[in-house]
Amino acid sequence: MSEPAAQNAKKKEKAPKKPKENKQQQKPKPQQQDGKKQTKLGIDTKKYDNYSEWYSQVVTKAELIEYHDVSGCYVLRPWAYSIWEFIQSFFDKEIKKLDVCNAYFPMFVAASALEKEKTHLTDFAPEVAWVTKAGSSELAEHIAIRPTSETVIYPFFAKWTQSHRDLPIKVNQWCNVVRWEFKHPTPFIRSREFLWQEGHTAFESKEEAEQEVYNILDLYSKVYTDLLAIPVVKGRKSEKEKFAGADFTTTVEAYVPVNGRGIQGATSHHLGQNFSKMFLIKYQDPVDPSKQAFAWQNSWGLSTRTIGALVMVHADDNGLVLPPRVASIQAVVIPVGITAKTTEEEKKKLLDKCQEIVNRLIDADVRVKLDAKDNVSPGWKFNHWELKGVPVRVEVGPKDLEKNQVLAVIRHDGEKRPVSLDGLENSFQELMIEIHKKMYQKVEKQRDEHKTVCTDWSKFVDLLDQKFVLLSPFCGGIECEEKIKDGSAREEPAELGQSAMGAKTLCIPLEQPSEALPEKCIFPECQEKAKFFALFGRSY
Amino acid sequence: MSEPAAQNAKKKEKAPKKPKENKQQQKPKPQQQDGKKQTKLGIDTKKYDNYSEWYSQVVTKAELIEYHDVSGCYVLRPWAYSIWEFIQSFFDKEIKKLDVCNAYFPMFVAASALEKEKTHLTDFAPEVAWVTKAGSSELAEHIAIRPTSETVIYPFFAKWTQSHRDLPIKVNQWCNVVRWEFKHPTPFIRSREFLWQEGHTAFESKEEAEQEVYNILDLYSKVYTDLLAIPVVKGRKSEKEKFAGADFTTTVEAYVPVNGRGIQGATSHHLGQNFSKMFLIKYQDPVDPSKQAFAWQNSWGLSTRTIGALVMVHADDNGLVLPPRVASIQAVVIPVGITAKTTEEEKKKLLDKCQEIVNRLIDADVRVKLDAKDNVSPGWKFNHWELKGVPVRVEVGPKDLEKNQVLAVIRHDGEKRPVSLDGLENSFQELMIEIHKKMYQKVEKQRDEHKTVCTDWSKFVDLLDQKFVLLSPFCGGIECEEKIKDGSAREEPAELGQSAMGAKTLCIPLEQPSEALPEKCIFPECQEKAKFFALFGRSY
Repeated sequence: MSEPAAQNAKKKEKAPKKPKENKQQQKPKPQQQDGKKQTKLGIDTKKYDNYSEWYSQVVTKAELIEYHDVSGCYVLRPWAYSIWEFIQSFFDKEIKKLDVCNAYFPMFVAASALEKEKTHLTDFAPEVAWVTKAGSSELAEHIAIRPTSETVIYPFFAKWTQSHRDLPIKVNQWCNVVRWEFKHPTPFIRSREFLWQEGHTAFESKEEAEQEVYNILDLYSKVYTDLLAIPVVKGRKSEKEKFAGADFTTTVEAYVPVNGRGIQGATSHHLGQNFSKMFLIKYQDPVDPSKQAFAWQNSWGLSTRTIGALVMVHADDNGLVLPPRVASIQAVVIPVGITAKTTEEEKKKLLDKCQEIVNRLIDADVRVKLDAKDNVSPGWKFNHWELKGVPVRVEVGPKDLEKNQVLAVIRHDGEKRPVSLDGLENSFQELMIEIHKKMYQKVEKQRDEHKTVCTDWSKFVDLLDQKFVLLSPFCGGIECEEKIKDGSAREEPAELGQSAMGAKTLCIPLEQPSEALPEKCIFPECQEKAKFFALFGRSY
Repeated sequence: MSEPAAQNAKKKEKAPKKPKENKQQQKPKPQQQDGKKQTKLGIDTKKYDNYSEWYSQVVTKAELIEYHDVSGCYVLRPWAYSIWEFIQSFFDKEIKKLDVCNAYFPMFVAASALEKEKTHLTDFAPEVAWVTKAGSSELAEHIAIRPTSETVIYPFFAKWTQSHRDLPIKVNQWCNVVRWEFKHPTPFIRSREFLWQEGHTAFESKEEAEQEVYNILDLYSKVYTDLLAIPVVKGRKSEKEKFAGADFTTTVEAYVPVNGRGIQGATSHHLGQNFSKMFLIKYQDPVDPSKQAFAWQNSWGLSTRTIGALVMVHADDNGLVLPPRVASIQAVVIPVGITAKTTEEEKKKLLDKCQEIVNRLIDADVRVKLDAKDNVSPGWKFNHWELKGVPVRVEVGPKDLEKNQVLAVIRHDGEKRPVSLDGLENSFQELMIEIHKKMYQKVEKQRDEHKTVCTDWSKFVDLLDQKFVLLSPFCGGIECEEKIKDGSAREEPAELGQSAMGAKTLCIPLEQPSEALPEKCIFPECQEKAKFFALFGRSY
């Protein structure tokens, strides 16, 4: 049974065994779940009440993550890994169009190689995990596990670059990396081992290299906007926030409405000649053969943090909410309306019809699953798939079928929409596009309502407290950014935790506000001129 | 210019600048390359003269591998990684049809977890790499890097198995593993870090589990036969050779003609209840609710060793030879016949025609590349792509085009075959199938000529020396197998190295010889009855 609530109100009396499920089905508000059998299955706190506990419940109860007994390491369960596979599949195809080849470089780095590029090392040294023993033997030289692979890969770039004709070199690897952070770990967002792709390229000219930095940034932007339904701001990192050893770092920055924090989505770095001079990635200058020329390099990475951003941005009090393009199950078909009076024949007919609907949707390239389990109630299934974030639940009951329709219940906004069996394939294909668009627009609206130009320092901290990210005139200085961070931190008890932190620059947006840039940097004590509007925010 | 050798013999005089390349093109015998300019590019030893040096040259000069400064670790360059991607793509699709989901489990294992399954541990403990430090801090508990993931994954299987309805569980991961071997490392074959997939499954019944073991074994067999063009024998490992902790191990075993050694291709294990009892993967028995039931488990793995087998089996004195289904470039189009007299217009016309041919082949799903570089001679290109093992070189010259044809030069057997431009697409699609088949058949013939039933111990060692693998009656005993190994080792100087080793069982073939099984085990001192024919051989 799957009629809209109003029609169904009376009929519930006829099926006394499943009122709870029907009720939840109609109004999936969390307070209605409290104390009921389903509570154990669902999230028992609210996103806006206890965000940290909520996050932890969503990632575990939606079966994305298991906590491992090595702290800061997590199991990516199939439900999470499948999201990563969609991202991989998209991005891998796109970079291959740019002539990037996949490869695999060793995870181990000799201490001496790691120490070659000092600026770079300073950034990572405190977090490097060291292998010192094999079996029962002490190793003569300690061996690092890659926190990133510049120092592993670039000696080979040097070997492969004998002439300008050997350039460009473009490689990528999908791999694990290890950064032994001592801060509080968070699944997807800060973990000691994580999965990513790292692209490494070398070019003959600075221009080619710079062009690629932005091409890749566009692809990262598309991962967020086109797959994850999350708007991002493209920009350059400040001097303080850029990758150590890079000439400049570009980034896509997303906004997390629940706490107003920015989250870095992925970064694409132009390394200039910093590494090529260190690792001697050089060749005879084709213009002036008496000279050596050094390659211009980039590196760029996107990690499983993407999944964390998805959870923070889209999940709600009922659990995960998956945008359709990264949902391994886009629609779950659930037979409903089976009562004690239903005959075996009627039951079989209903299940056959469900299977027929599933087959039609599969043929239309909708990723669909039939949940025909007979040991749990439809209501249990509703909650289960809601928690897992499946974009559409398709209820198929005898009454619906009489009307030649099914009931689509849309996860992200709870809408119940009868869908005719005529043209079902088309309707569902369009529905997926519509859901993606609406999920994106909702977050974009929340973000845009909390993104504003702020040229007045006296309003800066208040706006941050109101979950804003702020476009403010900035001199670009490292010390000034540190002072802004200190000056925007609030002195509050530790319980309130995260929101008391100071602001940093999320990025210097490529697209600057239309407002005229004020002459002075926003920070009152700073005497420098403003160079640009930077996007400031509290941040992950 | 690309006419067959006989026709071309005289015409060579007309193009004095490229006689060497033309000569090589016609007869790519290694002795003709010696001492020439091209020698540096090519392999300068022979497979049957100095196999170990030859292997090392092929994997480096064909751009599969770079040696890393951490011993036993290698870079998988794009040319090697693309082979792995074809294998991944095939296998991943197939296991998904079996409802296996990909996931990712942490690389780190706490010492206590690793030590849980003792039999298993004994096998791996001497090779485990240990992380003992992070940054400058000593870790309180030492952490192992997975040599395989049973002990990482099965605690979660225990958590996920609350009822018989939670089974089967089927997960797989594509990842790196570390086995810090102290034996001489060999790229692909024995490396300290390697890539693989490891599947882990748990079932309610022994029968379901056993069925899966063989389903996966069939897929592994297909990776070899259908992708790598390598025949394999499917079988069960002996008690001595099986995976520690498994009830039984199945395997696909390939044969390396050059030295007559067997090479294990991939293994699929039935773990019985050994791990489920250790890790408590249990549930209430649905038949007798007063009892606990333990899951029946499998694990199965295929690694980048596949690429090593491909090299050993197919590569020749001129370099790598790729079977078409794992070749990222199946055909390379090379413009030929450009001389000092060729006008710019003629040159442009030729290159346009080459591009047209490439486009036609791309549309026919042939993976094709145009090599139009103008800084090297056609002969240099011939050698380069030959070394890299591209299945077909397509020479396109003005004379060919006048005849409405191109010249296909087939890598694995050197055949030169004019192919009409009419129906080019079809011809090339069929050619790829033909090449695969011929490569397979050639190796199968070599293997079958060196695989025989041997029931007479006095002939056993001689046959091994003649590069045979032997189907011999065997009692199955661990001690007896050890004695056979000792008894079949030859006492020879270390220079002769590998071929002096003793024989072990490669497997107990699923398909037994048609001959009647003799009553007694082949080893003269053994008093046990023969249980089956085992396939014995020197081995990797």
